[in-house]
Amino acid sequence: MLRSQFEDELNKLHNQFYSMGTQVSAQLNKAVRAFVSHDKELAEEVIASDEEINYLETKLETKSLEMIALQQPVSHDLRTIITVLKASSDLERMGDHAVSIAQAAINLKGEERIPSVEEDITIMGEKVKNIVDASLNAYMQGDEVRAREIATWDNDINLMFSEIQNKVLEGMKDNTDTIHTGKEYLMTLTYLERIGDYAKNLCEWIVYLKTGKIVEL
Amino acid sequence: MLRSQFEDELNKLHNQFYSMGTQVSAQLNKAVRAFVSHDKELAEEVIASDEEINYLETKLETKSLEMIALQQPVSHDLRTIITVLKASSDLERMGDHAVSIAQAAINLKGEERIPSVEEDITIMGEKVKNIVDASLNAYMQGDEVRAREIATWDNDINLMFSEIQNKVLEGMKDNTDTIHTGKEYLMTLTYLERIGDYAKNLCEWIVYLKTGKIVEL
Repeated sequence: MLRSQFEDELNKLHNQFYSMGTQVSAQLNKAVRAFVSHDKELAEEVIASDEEINYLETKLETKSLEMIALQQPVSHDLRTIITVLKASSDLERMGDHAVSIAQAAINLKGEERIPSVEEDITIMGEKVKNIVDASLNAYMQGDEVRAREIATWDNDINLMFSEIQNKVLEGMKDNTDTIHTGKEYLMTLTYLERIGDYAKNLCEWIVYLKTGKIVEL
Repeated sequence: MLRSQFEDELNKLHNQFYSMGTQVSAQLNKAVRAFVSHDKELAEEVIASDEEINYLETKLETKSLEMIALQQPVSHDLRTIITVLKASSDLERMGDHAVSIAQAAINLKGEERIPSVEEDITIMGEKVKNIVDASLNAYMQGDEVRAREIATWDNDINLMFSEIQNKVLEGMKDNTDTIHTGKEYLMTLTYLERIGDYAKNLCEWIVYLKTGKIVEL
């Protein structure tokens, strides 16, 4: 294969990864909206779109493996492919968690809500979407410095996670009619927190892409 | 590098992966024991050992990448390395979840328990440990058929997950003094369920190792 052909393939892979990322981000956004606005139709939409994301992951993995096996790339080219190969699982799991949030939205029966918790979840959802989008942009620009910075945002998300959890528990104690809803809040908080972790993982792969070093941020 | 030298390295990588897996399995076992027997010291031990597991993951990833870059392996050799490269993240995340269970054990203050839930969590913990150990053995033996079978065990774990969750919610409703404990039960159930998912992932990588096909089990 000609070098220019290989470069085209590499570029395509890079763009497909980014495109999968933006789809996952859109899923996350829809899932949180479905949850806080109690929109079951939107939640169903998120669940239905997950198949496409799983398909994209398999496609990216298959293509990455094929390129490694057939082209035997080295240095930066190899790192580009390895990053896609590893980080596509992170994207796919973010997508899975978006589905879990959508499922939680559907589980919410006609029971008692805790409105202030739902406001907090909206804010936390925005923060999580921000870290995902920022990581994807840092990936596109191969910006290692930015990736290191973005990874620190996860602390703020973890802090919010604990605070809202406590608020949910207080709410459940005050009114046991909120216990089933409260469980869905707790689960959704866990999913959001975990998506933040995956975004941090992606940042670690950006550092690898630029430096060849496996780091823990 | 001589073929025999390369084969030695490959074998070493394979064994180190398995060894990391058995350490993760031991962590899981300890974490569940710490949780159900309210043993904070044991929980602290799990938390302290996590660093070693993270170190093993980094070491495996670094070694895998080095072998791909320097040896440019093909076919089954390449697949062996790729499997370690991909599945080491699954092991590391199982380890993270064991730590989260240990953390939940520590969070359990002197509050009201629900003994029957703790019995159920013990049983679910055993089931999860079984799927992890069985997957690791299937990996060691490169047994694709067995891997496909083991992956189906995850359904049983998911079923238990829902059942115990409902029991926890009932318990919380009956006695609001169990709400804080109940939250730790719910979190621990989520971690166990997720570990089952990672074991299923490992099974998918065993299929890839043997067939070169990326599958979803």
